[in-house]
Amino acid sequence: MLELYHFEPGANSLKSMLCLKEKGVEFVSHYVNLHEFEQHDPEYVKVNPNGQVPALVHDGAVITESTVINEYMEDVFPEKPLRPADPVVRANMRVWTKFVDEYFCPALSILGWNRIIKPMVEHLSEEEFEAKLARIPLKEQQDKWRTAANRTFPQEQLDDCQRRVEVSIQRVEKALEESDWIAGPDYSLADISCFSMMAPMAMFNEQTMNQDKTPRCMDWHARMMERPAVKETFAMAKRPMPYMEKTA
Amino acid sequence: MLELYHFEPGANSLKSMLCLKEKGVEFVSHYVNLHEFEQHDPEYVKVNPNGQVPALVHDGAVITESTVINEYMEDVFPEKPLRPADPVVRANMRVWTKFVDEYFCPALSILGWNRIIKPMVEHLSEEEFEAKLARIPLKEQQDKWRTAANRTFPQEQLDDCQRRVEVSIQRVEKALEESDWIAGPDYSLADISCFSMMAPMAMFNEQTMNQDKTPRCMDWHARMMERPAVKETFAMAKRPMPYMEKTA
Repeated sequence: MLELYHFEPGANSLKSMLCLKEKGVEFVSHYVNLHEFEQHDPEYVKVNPNGQVPALVHDGAVITESTVINEYMEDVFPEKPLRPADPVVRANMRVWTKFVDEYFCPALSILGWNRIIKPMVEHLSEEEFEAKLARIPLKEQQDKWRTAANRTFPQEQLDDCQRRVEVSIQRVEKALEESDWIAGPDYSLADISCFSMMAPMAMFNEQTMNQDKTPRCMDWHARMMERPAVKETFAMAKRPMPYMEKTA
Repeated sequence: MLELYHFEPGANSLKSMLCLKEKGVEFVSHYVNLHEFEQHDPEYVKVNPNGQVPALVHDGAVITESTVINEYMEDVFPEKPLRPADPVVRANMRVWTKFVDEYFCPALSILGWNRIIKPMVEHLSEEEFEAKLARIPLKEQQDKWRTAANRTFPQEQLDDCQRRVEVSIQRVEKALEESDWIAGPDYSLADISCFSMMAPMAMFNEQTMNQDKTPRCMDWHARMMERPAVKETFAMAKRPMPYMEKTA
């Protein structure tokens, strides 16, 4: 029995949803509504003490961290491999998934939080908001919520995040000059990791990712959008977004 | 033919040196002297364009990132496994190596840089220092060098790093309450990752790691120090440090 706790098919939730769909394994979907702060509900914190999505539950064992979940899926369901067979290419794939987790995603995340959180919480009174904060298990996440709710990320930090996103996209573009897929000749977890960040970009970050500046990223994005697993994953959205339905 | 480019057996260099020693595979050691900024030498940047150690070269193929190197070693030399056979325990191991890379190591690194870099570069004129900086491939590393050389990390950031180091040690202590080794019943890459950060701590961070506060960490540290591979790795030091010779 395989269960996935996840939010909408975006960012880290998308990363593991897409992996499961590519594998073609059946799983029970548990929607955790981040807009309702359900990831901090005591019942969910019992599943993942960090209060974060996604989390995979396999025959009762909990696996957290989207990148670790995807490696786990490869370990237990080796059919339809998403890890390159060649160990050198596989290492390259891991450098990519690591890069997404340590560089690309944190930069994108700050920019997203800066945009999204304030409208999400401004209907709350200060007391209500503090009560929401108090339930967040990780201090770092509490700090990030507070900063995002007040939109007090320093402009210097936001500018640096935007720069990092551009560095990331250029790095993907360069990789796609050398091979059809990001980590080499075959589709892999590296493509899934990057797509989990880049899926909305052709529509929402046109100044960064577009036909002129990043033609290979655009072509790769279009090929990603054609994959049945991507379509199935986006079809799971409770609140579908325009970028899930078409390429730019 | 296996070659490892590395600095002294500490931090990320230690992580891969120890893995290779545990595996018992022969390798050619290339010492990259960070005190002489050799990691930014053009010849080394040809090996690793990021100008960072360690880097593994296996029959001409370059593998970077210590955690990826260690997974690669497991893929190509599966004898004497350092990845747990049980996929759930293996996932736990990967959560640990990821935690070290994303949380523990960055915090420890800022504290270390804040202490070490200024005395390392203060004999240089401003021009000489700028010339050193100009050779650093990654902008983020350039920024970090400049901040460390001027000791201008904000006190708030340093305090938060110290807090994170303590959170990390407590997390290790808690894991060791549940099993003999960090990720489960068997010694694994999780122990190697944590030890690469914690090796000097019993001596240099006694306020954080000591018999009263973290008895299990101290016991684990002593067991690590007894491992032949750890002794062999520390014997590779060009400038041996007291903590390499004895436990606290």
